Amino acid sequence: METAVNQTESEIKDSVLAMGVEALRASRKLAAIPTETKNAALLTLAELILSEQASLQTANEKDLKAGRENDLSSAMLDRLALTPKRIEGMVEGIRQIANLPDPVGALLNTYDHPKGFKIHKRRVPIGVIGIIYESRPNVTIDCAALCLKSGNATILRGGKEAIHSNRALAALIAQALVDHDLPEGAVQLIPTTDRAATRALLDLDEYVHCLIPRGGEGLVRFVGENAKMPVLKHYDGICSVYVDTKADLEMASSIIFNAKVQRPGVCNAAENLVVHRDVLASHLPAMAKRLVEAGVELRADAEAKSCLEAHGIAVSAATDEDFRTEYLEPILSIRTAESIDAAIDFINTNGSGHSDAIVTADAAAAKRFQDTIDSATVYWNVSTRFTDGFEFGLGAEIGISTDRMHARGPVGLEELTSYKYIIEGHGEIR
Amino acid sequence: METAVNQTESEIKDSVLAMGVEALRASRKLAAIPTETKNAALLTLAELILSEQASLQTANEKDLKAGRENDLSSAMLDRLALTPKRIEGMVEGIRQIANLPDPVGALLNTYDHPKGFKIHKRRVPIGVIGIIYESRPNVTIDCAALCLKSGNATILRGGKEAIHSNRALAALIAQALVDHDLPEGAVQLIPTTDRAATRALLDLDEYVHCLIPRGGEGLVRFVGENAKMPVLKHYDGICSVYVDTKADLEMASSIIFNAKVQRPGVCNAAENLVVHRDVLASHLPAMAKRLVEAGVELRADAEAKSCLEAHGIAVSAATDEDFRTEYLEPILSIRTAESIDAAIDFINTNGSGHSDAIVTADAAAAKRFQDTIDSATVYWNVSTRFTDGFEFGLGAEIGISTDRMHARGPVGLEELTSYKYIIEGHGEIR
Repeated sequence: METAVNQTESEIKDSVLAMGVEALRASRKLAAIPTETKNAALLTLAELILSEQASLQTANEKDLKAGRENDLSSAMLDRLALTPKRIEGMVEGIRQIANLPDPVGALLNTYDHPKGFKIHKRRVPIGVIGIIYESRPNVTIDCAALCLKSGNATILRGGKEAIHSNRALAALIAQALVDHDLPEGAVQLIPTTDRAATRALLDLDEYVHCLIPRGGEGLVRFVGENAKMPVLKHYDGICSVYVDTKADLEMASSIIFNAKVQRPGVCNAAENLVVHRDVLASHLPAMAKRLVEAGVELRADAEAKSCLEAHGIAVSAATDEDFRTEYLEPILSIRTAESIDAAIDFINTNGSGHSDAIVTADAAAAKRFQDTIDSATVYWNVSTRFTDGFEFGLGAEIGISTDRMHARGPVGLEELTSYKYIIEGHGEIR
Repeated sequence: METAVNQTESEIKDSVLAMGVEALRASRKLAAIPTETKNAALLTLAELILSEQASLQTANEKDLKAGRENDLSSAMLDRLALTPKRIEGMVEGIRQIANLPDPVGALLNTYDHPKGFKIHKRRVPIGVIGIIYESRPNVTIDCAALCLKSGNATILRGGKEAIHSNRALAALIAQALVDHDLPEGAVQLIPTTDRAATRALLDLDEYVHCLIPRGGEGLVRFVGENAKMPVLKHYDGICSVYVDTKADLEMASSIIFNAKVQRPGVCNAAENLVVHRDVLASHLPAMAKRLVEAGVELRADAEAKSCLEAHGIAVSAATDEDFRTEYLEPILSIRTAESIDAAIDFINTNGSGHSDAIVTADAAAAKRFQDTIDSATVYWNVSTRFTDGFEFGLGAEIGISTDRMHARGPVGLEELTSYKYIIEGHGEIR
């Protein structure tokens, strides 16, 4: 694959358009490819990644070197690195996807029309999916494997920091496709790092049926606002745990501790703790103490702050901004609620519609919370940390959708499909 | 409801924003409203439309008068008119919707997590749906009723030609909502006809979860390209009937006749007839003769044209544009295909992904066609005219989606919903 240098914006536009045409053509072939062929190609890809590990790391080293020269943060350099462990993770991920059931072709519904013909609603691939992502090169493999298994053609647009790694990975994908007589247009990486390519992709609604941005909120918002085609959005996880009047203290403490501390850097970790005023004095200090001992920094509204200070627990004042922040770090914002409805309003207003939990022994309160919290996943007496494709029995996922259209929550293989109506008759007319 | 006169763009923006805030608040209440209450409000609305028929017609007369003064075409004036028969149709439509099952709350899936908690995937409303439509005032009632039944709050943005009729209908909807203690924000009509209101609505992605444009291709394209939120698109129906080598002549003739002639002005009527070269001489003349006798104008490619002319059948030359045109009139374009794959390519390239049919006695050919035709509905030996919510057993619909994301084909009550995961446990942590 050649480095695209000195291309004009119009040349880039033309080449992205050509990729779209190719992808659409490939998608129509892919829709009818047997499961075994798709799985065989995935397993070949896994083998190729293992056998070409050294050359992958050489390509990755170019990205890391450029990153160091461009003063990337150590966190970004870390995300960029294709360590042996990460390579193993990619291979393992591909094998898991090969083992998952193929969603394509499933009969979703069938109906006998009174005139005698049959109406079958069958699951089919969406068609062509564009993925726009940032620095992690493993996204190239994850997304390509999920889309291929679900019968979709993919156009990948990775971050410029990972371009050498991505090109090396794309070459292996292309080889796996060719080895199994699959169309090369089934997975294509945009080879240039020019931003004009992203703009061209956003305009390609005649050929690309859906875009999935994977990255920070800025990227997701930009793609959502500027794409002409549908976008599956995965925004931040600003998740809350609400402790109601009838909450068992031990359970509440264990759930917020798990939701905040077990892995703070993921989207289903809790960022906000909401406590009903009536149990503030009885429940908050013990919960907070355990969190502080684990190194969590607390930020609280005035009422919770004075309650904590009365117990000698270190806490700072939370701002409105704090309650709308996905820290992804050991920081927790604490809010006092005068009622369950105030807690629900607070979460619906400040949360991101991802995962929220109520801790209570009161089934009516739980029902009210679960009916009216407007999030993809609403937990009763369970930690928010379970929002995950594998935990939900859906297998590997491309992300957690905070949208309501098409897919909400984990986006696995089934969520990467559409359906069509297949009708079989004997000459029936209306 | 007041006429909004002399508002500045920024005032219009503020008032549309206020409607969005109100709609989102209402949607959270609506999500938990019992089916009986929603049905009772719908039946009250039906009664109000009947009892206020005279005042509706007075309001409608204002629109018709303005339309005549503005030289609207007679077709547009006809679409605008609220005749007693149309009013009866609206009332009947509302009653049908009240009789359909409520999609909200249905359990779509349930899963026991190994740790002991339960994961329920439940159907919930989408939230807030914006409808942008053109001149028919009955759309106001159809959309409001479908959205209310499916638990969604609605913001309606009708065409300026129907503004008096729409305001009168919206006032009845508001009264039906109040009569049943439903939030007034559940159905709101944008009272101004200023285009700034449409622009403001397209930007309101924090409050409006989905837009549905209903109207011509220009409107659908404009909304699809400019809206910041997801759009459910219903493009034209450029439907084809393909007559394969193994087609029974009688059946092929009956299907194309029905698909073209029974009701040419609807989206599931056929616009293109594709005939395999091997049966052109044997099948086309008889099919064409019957169509011409019913007043259908034929346009054909060179090969089909000479075949027809050899039989003395009147036909003109079809242009590329003809094959991509939704005539909605008794005009049919005819294409010769050298193979089934050429027919498939032609339909995938020129059709609109709505409804296409193959006529053949060859099951393998039918399978190939149904697997690879990239349309919402693919018929084998059945007329395309059946693509319709009621015919598919889905009940009333808001349109036929030619999109692949979220909903494809008829968009009825179920397609106006999303889902969320409701999780019940006993303190489980990860």
